[in-house]
Amino acid sequence: MPHMPFRLASPMTDQTNPVSADRKIVLLTEGFSEPITAKTATSVIRYGRFPTIAILDSHEAGKTAQQLFDIGGDIPVVAKLSEAAGANTLMIGIAPPGGKIPDSWRPIILEAIHSGMDVVSGLHDFLSANEEFVAAAKKAGVNLVDVRKNNEHDVANRLNWRDQCLRIHTVGQDCSIGKMLVSVELTRALQARGHDAKFVATGQTGIMIEGDGCPIDCVVADFVSGAIEKQILAHQHHDFLFIEGQGSLSHPRYSAVTLGLLHGCLPHAMILCYEAGRTAVNGMEYIPLKSLPELRTIYENTASIMMPARVIGIAMNSRLLSGAAAEAERQRVREEMGLPVCDVIRHGPDELVDAVLQLHAERSKTS
Amino acid sequence: MPHMPFRLASPMTDQTNPVSADRKIVLLTEGFSEPITAKTATSVIRYGRFPTIAILDSHEAGKTAQQLFDIGGDIPVVAKLSEAAGANTLMIGIAPPGGKIPDSWRPIILEAIHSGMDVVSGLHDFLSANEEFVAAAKKAGVNLVDVRKNNEHDVANRLNWRDQCLRIHTVGQDCSIGKMLVSVELTRALQARGHDAKFVATGQTGIMIEGDGCPIDCVVADFVSGAIEKQILAHQHHDFLFIEGQGSLSHPRYSAVTLGLLHGCLPHAMILCYEAGRTAVNGMEYIPLKSLPELRTIYENTASIMMPARVIGIAMNSRLLSGAAAEAERQRVREEMGLPVCDVIRHGPDELVDAVLQLHAERSKTS
Repeated sequence: MPHMPFRLASPMTDQTNPVSADRKIVLLTEGFSEPITAKTATSVIRYGRFPTIAILDSHEAGKTAQQLFDIGGDIPVVAKLSEAAGANTLMIGIAPPGGKIPDSWRPIILEAIHSGMDVVSGLHDFLSANEEFVAAAKKAGVNLVDVRKNNEHDVANRLNWRDQCLRIHTVGQDCSIGKMLVSVELTRALQARGHDAKFVATGQTGIMIEGDGCPIDCVVADFVSGAIEKQILAHQHHDFLFIEGQGSLSHPRYSAVTLGLLHGCLPHAMILCYEAGRTAVNGMEYIPLKSLPELRTIYENTASIMMPARVIGIAMNSRLLSGAAAEAERQRVREEMGLPVCDVIRHGPDELVDAVLQLHAERSKTS
Repeated sequence: MPHMPFRLASPMTDQTNPVSADRKIVLLTEGFSEPITAKTATSVIRYGRFPTIAILDSHEAGKTAQQLFDIGGDIPVVAKLSEAAGANTLMIGIAPPGGKIPDSWRPIILEAIHSGMDVVSGLHDFLSANEEFVAAAKKAGVNLVDVRKNNEHDVANRLNWRDQCLRIHTVGQDCSIGKMLVSVELTRALQARGHDAKFVATGQTGIMIEGDGCPIDCVVADFVSGAIEKQILAHQHHDFLFIEGQGSLSHPRYSAVTLGLLHGCLPHAMILCYEAGRTAVNGMEYIPLKSLPELRTIYENTASIMMPARVIGIAMNSRLLSGAAAEAERQRVREEMGLPVCDVIRHGPDELVDAVLQLHAERSKTS
């Protein structure tokens, strides 16, 4: 595999690029189909450019994607690769803490390779670092694509930034809370209103969807700010950038990634993402989450070490709530925070889009 | 080279370990002998376990180390490797931004290899990633040692921490300000007073001196907190840990590394390090430094996202000042901050040691 930052070098023709080949996808979530862990699968179904032929999870076989994930309609959940006729790509559909490939998946991945399928993974455990997979892929003539693999080795410089490009950064209370989804929805909503907006992907799933970006959490620590600066410089000809956040400043494991992004992309404003009903850190249930007012203070103080930035809206993930409960929660948070609040899926993103456009108008007036 | 966290596996016998072999060192600083960039060289001279035979910098040849670095007595500065009779190890003596090996050094490194010397480097640019160096080393039967090379892939868990072990973290205003030196001096001063203290090295130079530690700035971003947690768990049987800080929370390039360390080691208290007279970020002279009161607020607020921690003292690097000016600056900062202040080299570390012991006594009383 080329040890290079992921880039859509040659759209639709580069077989080592997960979004550029003519892919028909089987999403592998075997044994890990709960929605938080399977977030790569659900996002690829929601936003991906290529058809998903099947979900592979023998424990859930017989269901539809809609039944399993609440999205994806009639896409079948199958027990075996051979039941996914016409698929040419096995895509790892999970994002577990630490990013390791489950041991029990080894035979499934080998079967896919032997049957002539490319394998695409966004995990820290690189397919291309596994000698057995590499040997099998070579023999079968298929590609192993590690979306997180990168060779970022440049530091940030803070030169030649275009201030007229409005940078909005999604930040959050925890991992797997919806920061990528909010960034994509806001970008698309701005585009739908005729604005020149771009989603800046910073994680493996976002990259699979957008076709470019940088897997920030897999960059060597000294180069995190430099890696995101490179993305900003590449895309700042757009009027609006929505920069996908990672982890949380209050996450015991990943706060370094979060801060590198925050200080590396210098947002003009932040959207604070949270999941209603979540009370503890995902995967570390012995550590309670911070409140939204605490998080606002934390993010605004920490961003302001480099450049002042306000939280201008709250993106609520209300998947655990009924419609009425979501409405009550939305009202409660509006009052608590004095900010626009919405679940971009349930309510649509308009309230947050308006907040972004208002900031843009204010900045245009004063510049 | 083994792709493993650096560890003093077999003291005095492991030839791939920079501090365990019987080394006679030439420190390479060719063209980069200004003290900030050559900080690896000056620290190895100051604290290293093995004799330095010579400094190699043809631009400064004929001087002594004392004349060039204000430390090292009569160690000669030479123009050629052949003038360093008896040396068996070439050690890269600089820590430039981005950690790249200067192109002009290629022939010097090859000459060292050809003449049978091991080469030890702490740079991000791995010797072992350079095919020419690897081939030459294989032919010559010598070792290439990359101190920063690591394979950290575990996340933090925050379990089984021993609260009776007092964790003191050196933090700073910038890179290359003396955080490692302060950590080493405080550790040795505590030991001299009969306490069980340990220096926790987090950078290449500290590791070369201490013989263990973790090169935090070269760890994949998701695993920074996990890597430092591993160091804490390995050493928390000591009563005092002095954890070397990296970069600065206000550094545009490296704040992610700094935060990963801060949130990963959960200090009980911090020593704030600064250089008197420095006004801008090292290597980014267009970005002014923060004031000491601002930095105290930044570090205390940011540490407290995870666990409350106070700055209990100020370590001043007064190398640019005369004795009288250093005394005036010390008094000014004492009044400004209301904290103990000293230059651990010029004044000795006692004032900071007393602050650490006072905190320890307070904690013993309340526990």
